[in-house]
Amino acid sequence: MTQARIIALTALLVTGFTGVARADEGMWLLNQFPSDRVQARYKFAPDQEWLHHVQLASVRLARGCSGSFVSAQGLVMTNHHCAHSCIEQLSTKEKDFVKSGFYAKTQADEVKCPEIEVNDLVEISDVTQRIEKATKGLPDQKYNDAQKAEMSKIEKECATSDKLRCDVVTLFHGGQYHLYKYRRYQDVRLVFAPELAIAFFGGDPDNFNFPRYDLDLSFIRVYENDAPANIEHYFRWSPKGPADEELTFVSGHPGGTDRSLTMAELQFQREVSMPAMLLRLAELRGVLTEFGRIGEEEKRISTEDLFFIENSYKAFKGELEALNDDKLMGKKSAEEKDLRAKIDANPDLKSRYGSAFDAIVKAENKYREIYKPYAMLERGNGLRSKLYEMAKTLVRAAEERPKPNEKRFRELRDSALPAVTQALFSSAPIYDQLEILQMTFNLTKLREELGADDPMVKKVLGKESPEELAKRMITTTKIKSVDVRKKLWEGGKKAVDASDDPLIKLAKLVDPDARAIRKKYEDEVEGPVKKNSELVAKSRFDVFGSSNYPDATFTLRVSYGQVKGWMENGKMVKPFTSFGGAFERATGRPPFDLPESWIASKKSLDPKTPFNLCTTNDIIGGNSGSPVFNKSGQIVGLIFDGNIESLGGNYGFDETVNRAVAVHSEGLITALDKVYHADRIVQELRPKTTIGAR
Amino acid sequence: MTQARIIALTALLVTGFTGVARADEGMWLLNQFPSDRVQARYKFAPDQEWLHHVQLASVRLARGCSGSFVSAQGLVMTNHHCAHSCIEQLSTKEKDFVKSGFYAKTQADEVKCPEIEVNDLVEISDVTQRIEKATKGLPDQKYNDAQKAEMSKIEKECATSDKLRCDVVTLFHGGQYHLYKYRRYQDVRLVFAPELAIAFFGGDPDNFNFPRYDLDLSFIRVYENDAPANIEHYFRWSPKGPADEELTFVSGHPGGTDRSLTMAELQFQREVSMPAMLLRLAELRGVLTEFGRIGEEEKRISTEDLFFIENSYKAFKGELEALNDDKLMGKKSAEEKDLRAKIDANPDLKSRYGSAFDAIVKAENKYREIYKPYAMLERGNGLRSKLYEMAKTLVRAAEERPKPNEKRFRELRDSALPAVTQALFSSAPIYDQLEILQMTFNLTKLREELGADDPMVKKVLGKESPEELAKRMITTTKIKSVDVRKKLWEGGKKAVDASDDPLIKLAKLVDPDARAIRKKYEDEVEGPVKKNSELVAKSRFDVFGSSNYPDATFTLRVSYGQVKGWMENGKMVKPFTSFGGAFERATGRPPFDLPESWIASKKSLDPKTPFNLCTTNDIIGGNSGSPVFNKSGQIVGLIFDGNIESLGGNYGFDETVNRAVAVHSEGLITALDKVYHADRIVQELRPKTTIGAR
Repeated sequence: MTQARIIALTALLVTGFTGVARADEGMWLLNQFPSDRVQARYKFAPDQEWLHHVQLASVRLARGCSGSFVSAQGLVMTNHHCAHSCIEQLSTKEKDFVKSGFYAKTQADEVKCPEIEVNDLVEISDVTQRIEKATKGLPDQKYNDAQKAEMSKIEKECATSDKLRCDVVTLFHGGQYHLYKYRRYQDVRLVFAPELAIAFFGGDPDNFNFPRYDLDLSFIRVYENDAPANIEHYFRWSPKGPADEELTFVSGHPGGTDRSLTMAELQFQREVSMPAMLLRLAELRGVLTEFGRIGEEEKRISTEDLFFIENSYKAFKGELEALNDDKLMGKKSAEEKDLRAKIDANPDLKSRYGSAFDAIVKAENKYREIYKPYAMLERGNGLRSKLYEMAKTLVRAAEERPKPNEKRFRELRDSALPAVTQALFSSAPIYDQLEILQMTFNLTKLREELGADDPMVKKVLGKESPEELAKRMITTTKIKSVDVRKKLWEGGKKAVDASDDPLIKLAKLVDPDARAIRKKYEDEVEGPVKKNSELVAKSRFDVFGSSNYPDATFTLRVSYGQVKGWMENGKMVKPFTSFGGAFERATGRPPFDLPESWIASKKSLDPKTPFNLCTTNDIIGGNSGSPVFNKSGQIVGLIFDGNIESLGGNYGFDETVNRAVAVHSEGLITALDKVYHADRIVQELRPKTTIGAR
Repeated sequence: MTQARIIALTALLVTGFTGVARADEGMWLLNQFPSDRVQARYKFAPDQEWLHHVQLASVRLARGCSGSFVSAQGLVMTNHHCAHSCIEQLSTKEKDFVKSGFYAKTQADEVKCPEIEVNDLVEISDVTQRIEKATKGLPDQKYNDAQKAEMSKIEKECATSDKLRCDVVTLFHGGQYHLYKYRRYQDVRLVFAPELAIAFFGGDPDNFNFPRYDLDLSFIRVYENDAPANIEHYFRWSPKGPADEELTFVSGHPGGTDRSLTMAELQFQREVSMPAMLLRLAELRGVLTEFGRIGEEEKRISTEDLFFIENSYKAFKGELEALNDDKLMGKKSAEEKDLRAKIDANPDLKSRYGSAFDAIVKAENKYREIYKPYAMLERGNGLRSKLYEMAKTLVRAAEERPKPNEKRFRELRDSALPAVTQALFSSAPIYDQLEILQMTFNLTKLREELGADDPMVKKVLGKESPEELAKRMITTTKIKSVDVRKKLWEGGKKAVDASDDPLIKLAKLVDPDARAIRKKYEDEVEGPVKKNSELVAKSRFDVFGSSNYPDATFTLRVSYGQVKGWMENGKMVKPFTSFGGAFERATGRPPFDLPESWIASKKSLDPKTPFNLCTTNDIIGGNSGSPVFNKSGQIVGLIFDGNIESLGGNYGFDETVNRAVAVHSEGLITALDKVYHADRIVQELRPKTTIGAR
């Protein structure tokens, strides 16, 4: 499944959902924005024009990040970690841009990123009635199939060219369905990235911490017909950055939150999926860390994977802590009891919603039964490596593409194919060593989780050890060649059936069982959960009203808040850090080593220049790269993280301690100017001004 | 802390404690053995003489295993994995006995194990009154200190020579206190061990599984005055092994169970300590796995550590699953509520026990607050490597030994010193590479858990990276030399204060904070928990009677049960496996590769020879190496594992699925005879008989 890799910038605590969002809480829909609340608290009410501009000036990186247009020439500002894969893909053993940074001095030096897709949201429409009509009165499984079919149909009708991307989005876990139509850009080129050492200064030890000193920044540019795209709506640069307590907005694409899940779903996470994912990540982290110690090249090729693993690991660990927090979960449990009591007390509500919660409990119990094989054969904990995922896509597509659009797996519906083929035909380098490492790990876990006597395990391994099989497959597979992949894609089922490539063969071997367990999951878990979650959502509308925000869905949201420190262990954490702090924190040893460029520029930098800041904006993983802007729509920061207290934000928001962490606009542009001498970009961000002259 | 490494042979499910043990459940005290129950179920009532013989013929390996005397000449049978460390310590790069096996053809070839201590229990006495008198009426902290002081005093009075080891054991978490007096053997020599490939055939994938095909066996011998010790009480060999459904006994030293813990303590495990330990083990597993791939020697020196990590990991994972099992925990919760209701309903009980449960809740909440620094600086999740632990022992001992025996840390009381010095002055090899790997990991975790800004982390790391510091310390420390360690031990505080050895310096740097957090733990967690657990235990005696068994405490217990298969997913698992099954299962690739000796002997082996078996005996980690014997006291098997269902046995026993796994006596002696031609041992086990002639 070509699932977006949501960058786990994540957001802990306390305020449950279901009721009405309080304070600065909320990841609001653009078309349901609570201007009255902002007005009440901050004396500023965003109007339709303001919101429309923000919508068009905000972009999504389809594989899991946010960004913003910052010039009329298609310049997009995002995080370094959002373009990390591109930076690595453009690097070689000889020239490592992750280490040394990248700057295209002229436009001609801008280089295409093999796998980045940028989406600009042009239209939102409500398709709730159409979806509901298609599923009305159907039992769980048919409900699920009919809903997916209708979504694929709507999306196909909408996406009249590859330049458009259309996604039907399920909001409130089923209470509303909106169609999101995006302008799609696949010609995206790298413009600028600093050295990883400053982009991720402090590394994993400082990740999800504040105070912080990171230039987690990159610029990319969207092209149209081989020229920079002309962009009407983009964010201007703030002349002086944000003040303490100033009102701040963040637009972006929070990947997902679980604030309104039922207790049965939360317990499943706490007891089953979260421990399983965390333990897998922890072990893989150990493997990759040790692999990176073998030598420079091993270090280089494993750095990105290790970053994402450590990032997810820390985020999930924070989430598990929240799930184990009796106070938070006690509150959620009480809220659910209260809602259920209100439903039961009203005969009309009871007849419509009375059985929904128990139906979800039942489905989650089924999920417990099938979780291991489902996770290992079909979902995230299974066979994962670049090459294997390509093989799986080829095998699946050969089977699915001949089917009518509405009958296919959702990830292979027509409107999804441009993103699928971009990844499949990517020219990004593939490293045998790393592929072998990952497939060895995957196959070992497959045997560990399902057992050495499991028929599928026996079929897959035969008499070979996981390592032996992984080595043989990766060293002999032909699908490392883009041409071979193209031929298999174009040749369809006949070509795939005839292929004796070891990875294609493995994917073919696994596919029937993977499909079977997926069907079981979709029919017995996903179907009933979807259908009954829609009922739960509606019961909330009926009981509490509908003026709330839905859980995050990797679609555009705007949050409001303010620049603000917080109290930690009785000490005030101030909201701004400075360049001087970075130099003080540096030890010269990774991950606390400043790059040479910064050490060389130290004299020309004012140590008081603000570097990072924190705000009360409600964000989470997927908001990485989001612009922070003031009420005039001017950039005052670039989101790249949340504080450690924000890690439970997946389940609830606590304004007293939950903070978004951003690069300060002044530190950002000063670094571009004084450290990197990236004049071309500075001029583009602030036409006809210079840093000194503002 | 020189904590016994309990071999996590572990024992899942359902039957809670508190009430009366049912069916074959129970790890019974030798001096409170329920002969009447055995009689009622199996028509055989062990008498005092029988129990006395079993007591003296059963031994403990002080670092975490069980064993049995099997000849008059001090021959001890235990598991391969219980002697694994010795086998590895006697190996070199050139001669790897772990891989090739070890057999001393003559007595003169038997080689001393540097770190094995064997304990034979000679006497049990009840010291409950003496302990209670010493602590009567004291508040939490003083209660704890006074109890420890009295224990150290009793032990010192009892241990009149280094040949004796005396431990006061807390039973029922404080309901009773017994003094265990052991004959101590520190001259222990390796006699026989098969190749790891057959000792642990199936490796981690098959660990905690059944059917099984393992010869997890070693023989060691206890010496006295440089000659084999004369042993009066030892187990004879069964002429024909056990039959299906035959009554079986297991004597041994189950390390610890948590069946009668309060809900607050179980929740702490589920939410805090268990996830923390598991995640650490998972990551370290990944690190060591990858390290072992570097080359043959890296593989060799990391094999034992990896085995123990994987074994504990799988066991803890099973335990966490049990803690997350709503059925099991719901039952325990209901039982606790019931007990508390009974206490509250009776004014006398209420006045004595009414506040005990809430006091434990409070202490566990405090434990949550201090867990991270306590675990990182003082307990299991912190700085661990052979060398660092030696440095810590030297620094601590220099401070503690001048104090009166009763005032010292318990692990440095007089009666504990022979075991401490055996480990400290061990000639076992130490590998720089592995020490660096472990210290790098430890220091990285220290920074990760406490944060880069923690004052202790800053003191420890300074400007160095964890890897840099680890390398510098391990490559320059002088305490790799036994002589240097001896001098520091003998030189005491003066020598330690004067030392500028980097590891000694690190231990000195950490010690004040480690002592402070330990004191906090002992005063605010351990003290109140101990004092109130004693009350909970007594309330159970008062409400339910005292005819039950206490949670395991790494002291001698006897369990009864029978040879029996079980139903798994609707299929019967038979209780015996055979040699033939091992040959069928072999793939030729680790860990399913039979050693050359077995392949060469295949023709001379009857494939029907029974190899492993399973029984209903209630065992857990620490029972590794326990003898399985029939009512005539004859050896019919050798415990080495439990099935996967037994992993929740830490919290409760379910006779329908919980199984102990053992090597069958006939398979064992046949392998000795036909595969290893270990005639000397075969004769010693079965004097004047031969395999063929029985």
